[in-house]
Amino acid sequence: MANDQRFSGVLVPVLTPFKADLGPDTAKFLQYCRWLLDQGVDGLAVFGTTSEANSTSVDERMDQLDALIEAGISGDRLMPGTGACALTDTVRMTSQAVKHGCRGVLMLPPFYYKGVSDDGLFASFSEVIQRVGDDRLAIYLYHIPPIANVPITLSLIERLIKEYPDTVVGLKDSSGDWSNTEAVLNAFPGFGTFAGSEAFLLPTLRGGGVGCITATGNVNPAAIKHVADNWQTPQADELQAAITLVRKTIQAYPLIPACKRIVAHFHNDSSWTQVRPPLDGLGDEQAATLLSELEAVGFDMAGLEEDMAAQ
Amino acid sequence: MANDQRFSGVLVPVLTPFKADLGPDTAKFLQYCRWLLDQGVDGLAVFGTTSEANSTSVDERMDQLDALIEAGISGDRLMPGTGACALTDTVRMTSQAVKHGCRGVLMLPPFYYKGVSDDGLFASFSEVIQRVGDDRLAIYLYHIPPIANVPITLSLIERLIKEYPDTVVGLKDSSGDWSNTEAVLNAFPGFGTFAGSEAFLLPTLRGGGVGCITATGNVNPAAIKHVADNWQTPQADELQAAITLVRKTIQAYPLIPACKRIVAHFHNDSSWTQVRPPLDGLGDEQAATLLSELEAVGFDMAGLEEDMAAQ
Repeated sequence: MANDQRFSGVLVPVLTPFKADLGPDTAKFLQYCRWLLDQGVDGLAVFGTTSEANSTSVDERMDQLDALIEAGISGDRLMPGTGACALTDTVRMTSQAVKHGCRGVLMLPPFYYKGVSDDGLFASFSEVIQRVGDDRLAIYLYHIPPIANVPITLSLIERLIKEYPDTVVGLKDSSGDWSNTEAVLNAFPGFGTFAGSEAFLLPTLRGGGVGCITATGNVNPAAIKHVADNWQTPQADELQAAITLVRKTIQAYPLIPACKRIVAHFHNDSSWTQVRPPLDGLGDEQAATLLSELEAVGFDMAGLEEDMAAQ
Repeated sequence: MANDQRFSGVLVPVLTPFKADLGPDTAKFLQYCRWLLDQGVDGLAVFGTTSEANSTSVDERMDQLDALIEAGISGDRLMPGTGACALTDTVRMTSQAVKHGCRGVLMLPPFYYKGVSDDGLFASFSEVIQRVGDDRLAIYLYHIPPIANVPITLSLIERLIKEYPDTVVGLKDSSGDWSNTEAVLNAFPGFGTFAGSEAFLLPTLRGGGVGCITATGNVNPAAIKHVADNWQTPQADELQAAITLVRKTIQAYPLIPACKRIVAHFHNDSSWTQVRPPLDGLGDEQAATLLSELEAVGFDMAGLEEDMAAQ
């Protein structure tokens, strides 16, 4: 796949709405995906950490992807998470994504065993690429050591790029460690490096990266996209400071339930607060405090409410 | 389920033989399960960490369990691992195990998200128990913080036993931390506590626990069972010292590939060395050193070879 066809900008790991029986609410999910795209985001990184994807089965995820495509959302806008503990699951989900024309996939390393070698991880990614066996496959490696506890090291990236230059095309760095992102940017110019938080959007773009894939893109998509669109303007630092402040306000709370509470508030739909165990929802009092803190830091409540109402 | 019907003694988390295409070799698996039972072990904890179960899909595991039952291995001897990241997967595998009459299941907590609360984990186990909805279900909690990175705390155990006294009946402690096992034994007399390594078998039995579920049971089953059968005799400490020495010799190497190498050697079947990525196999040289170290510590090579030949 040519460089200019690859993902860049702001992608959102879409929150998954659950019904009271904890099954994914597909109708609500489709409506919400359309709203995010209407906000101007560049793509939907469905089935990510923020999506509670690993709390759902492979079949539940594959059904959701089928539904997105059937609803007319183009694969061109989709970067589904397809990395699982089991090689066979990763192959199955990745093959489906390629078949549906997804422009990329975001791939966790197999994350059950800890302390595995780069040889073992290389063998795992290689096996997936060979089994999927399709030139259209574009993999974004998913480095999220605070949760997966299995890092994607620089030497692993180097080996994968060398062996599969047209397939292993980028990375999402959710380490929260800027020095790691910087090292990736410096070591692999032209590689599609995304920050895992909009707090690092500007430095990532300035360092040669391509954007961010961020949980809080679920609640502040337009403002984050605005930074990506204006990163070379004199206002860039000021714009960045504003989205960073919102991000820091939200991430002082458990991130996924906090985002779900904010979406529930603005969509005026309390069912959005539902998380699947083992995650806990945010309490009513905590949620109220979060919302007032967001208002205090100038989060554009009114504008967002208007957008939602227009849906 | 009455106390005297519960598992005790030595259970083996059965290694999974893979074919060259990395699919489970069901015929070899069945033959090996029979060999382990012939060695006198009390049960087969199939689909555990040692089994590389999380490197296989839910369907691959369920097919293997169906095959075991169809081959006439009684559910009475089986404690399959059924805990997955996704609630729906855990429910599916646990329901199948109960339907097949498995005397118990070994249940990992959902292990993707880290730092989750005991409330969230309690909700997860509760949801599984209620969805399976069968009085025959007997859950052994699987505490393996070095790998799952999600602990089963004492306060979580207490809440689960209080709410589900006839269902949550025991625990496997693979923390490698004797002080934790001791705390569980002291806090919950009558709970079915298994050590996760035969190195702790005697102290576990003396402390009121019921046995061990151990990776190296794959290679030294009869000697470990002999300790369990003779723990109240004057020879107990001496017998324990011998199995501990073998265990420590093996666990100086990556445990799963080391066990597979030893089985490959004694079964004279090199295909046993195959692991599924992300695990790495042991090199030939390393394997040769391990085998000679085992001989040096008095591991009964001749006896084991005879047993295998008799198969």
